Amino acid sequence: MTLNTSVRLARRPAGMPVNDDWLIEAAPVPEPGPGEFTVRMQLISLDPAMRGWLDDRPSYLPPVAIGEVMRAMAIGEVVSSQHSGFAEGAIVLGTFGVQEYAVSDGTGVTLVNSRLGTPSMYLGILGTTGLTAYFGLMELGKPRAGDTVVVSAAAGAVGSVVGQLAKINGCRVVGIAGGSEKCAYVVDELGFDSAIDYKAPGLRQALAQACPDGIDVYFDNVGGPVLNAALGTLAMGARVVICGAISQYNAEVATPGPSNYMSLLVRRATMSGFLVFDYAAEYRTARKRLAKWVADEALTAPETLVTGTVADFNDVLLRLFSGDNVGKLILDVRPG
Amino acid sequence: MTLNTSVRLARRPAGMPVNDDWLIEAAPVPEPGPGEFTVRMQLISLDPAMRGWLDDRPSYLPPVAIGEVMRAMAIGEVVSSQHSGFAEGAIVLGTFGVQEYAVSDGTGVTLVNSRLGTPSMYLGILGTTGLTAYFGLMELGKPRAGDTVVVSAAAGAVGSVVGQLAKINGCRVVGIAGGSEKCAYVVDELGFDSAIDYKAPGLRQALAQACPDGIDVYFDNVGGPVLNAALGTLAMGARVVICGAISQYNAEVATPGPSNYMSLLVRRATMSGFLVFDYAAEYRTARKRLAKWVADEALTAPETLVTGTVADFNDVLLRLFSGDNVGKLILDVRPG
Repeated sequence: MTLNTSVRLARRPAGMPVNDDWLIEAAPVPEPGPGEFTVRMQLISLDPAMRGWLDDRPSYLPPVAIGEVMRAMAIGEVVSSQHSGFAEGAIVLGTFGVQEYAVSDGTGVTLVNSRLGTPSMYLGILGTTGLTAYFGLMELGKPRAGDTVVVSAAAGAVGSVVGQLAKINGCRVVGIAGGSEKCAYVVDELGFDSAIDYKAPGLRQALAQACPDGIDVYFDNVGGPVLNAALGTLAMGARVVICGAISQYNAEVATPGPSNYMSLLVRRATMSGFLVFDYAAEYRTARKRLAKWVADEALTAPETLVTGTVADFNDVLLRLFSGDNVGKLILDVRPG
Repeated sequence: MTLNTSVRLARRPAGMPVNDDWLIEAAPVPEPGPGEFTVRMQLISLDPAMRGWLDDRPSYLPPVAIGEVMRAMAIGEVVSSQHSGFAEGAIVLGTFGVQEYAVSDGTGVTLVNSRLGTPSMYLGILGTTGLTAYFGLMELGKPRAGDTVVVSAAAGAVGSVVGQLAKINGCRVVGIAGGSEKCAYVVDELGFDSAIDYKAPGLRQALAQACPDGIDVYFDNVGGPVLNAALGTLAMGARVVICGAISQYNAEVATPGPSNYMSLLVRRATMSGFLVFDYAAEYRTARKRLAKWVADEALTAPETLVTGTVADFNDVLLRLFSGDNVGKLILDVRPG
């Protein structure tokens, strides 16, 4: 009898999640019923949004319940099927959770098209990450050739794609990242025009120097003082895209909001939030465009694969918040 | 020889302006040169934005300089003219400043059309106040019939018009105002559907009760905790219009921004700022529409006229911040 090891929420984390917040459980892999199939996990996506799903407060998705398998996007192989649309051997993308096996009826599951990209790309550039960058920048940021586009967490999964898409759209791109190594990376490897280390002093001055005509599009993944500095540097008619606030997710007390929000008035600017799920009907078209740019080498899709087991989930998750990784962070649970 | 008494900025106020921040000066009224005319002031507009003009920091207009006549919109009569477009006896609207007489070349000056409204209406419902309400609500708020529209400083010059325009557009309107008297006023006199006293405890709960389906349009004149509470109560796709932040203007230390801004993401909402001057090309059309609603009694234009001299300017200005007035606040300097 095959066992399924799953990672379940044992208690709600206070601040940064620790191993004791999780329960590792092993139970027999259930057989798929009629219209169902069983997936064996290969690659599990790590996303900053996961932290928000652990808090018991209303949001765009219900919080993960105590005792429930941790929610996660993942890639797996269909190993047993009673579903006509998902044959054994198919590689699929879905919200399968942090576990070795999942049974699905196919709702919200996507077949990986190997002509478009590799399975890991379906978690990164062709997955929620790349689609978030694409729709957030194009639909809300509305970049025009010549615009100055600034993106925070620029070496991260979403930020790295946003900056490259802005370059494809003829913009001047400034990345904000933590540390000189990441700053060099986004300029040298990803083709950003310049980068600012937010850990160095003088962020506001550095932004003003890098953006002498102000920021036309600011794509925010971090919140906190970086967002506030960007709001203080807007060009007339600027678009501020709120994608995330990773600097805030583990805060144990509510952090102050951006005191510079009145710049929206002075600069006649707009600050908008979005969720990529609202654009699901357009995913297919966007994936094709993103895959073509990758094939044309106009877009590179950095990813960090960490080999391990589902029990390593918490350790790998923390890399998102310590800023240790570049690009899309993935837990690779394929047997060595 | 006629003297012109003017109110000039003596020093920059720290917090709430005091009389010692101003210098009252009397000097001969200058004769108009070719292409110029002299205006004798009748009505001087008091606006929350005035406080921002006194601080030495970059904004949408340069700060009033030390020694300069205080900037103000005003209505006056042309008493001497060498300008073909502005005859003696004409009633005009312009940024004439807090003084008894001004010389102008006509730039930015509007002739009061008595068929549209009274001179005081040209400072209120047909002036910057009414136009701000009109363009902010219609262009940024984009109200649709059935929407829940919430407006802060609801008994104020702009808020009172915003709420009535939202009613004209078929919306359900909730006002936020200070004290039970103002709350009763906006419901009983202005036709709002309900009102919330922000000085009473439980603002967030009161908002949630008044807006069971969330806020579709929030028009903010106050900033601070009221803005934050509204951000926590947004409906999907909400539009937040940033018009002012009167609760912040006299703050001596920077106040925190709205910590609930991440609701913009969860609710796929937009927060935008604007300045009415950007819509100058459309003022004429908007004035006609506003005047027609007033004539049809669909719109009342509350105003508070305070009789006095230009030397009373600071005392009258403070009424804006103490919340003592209803509707448009005007200093009436016409000789009794």
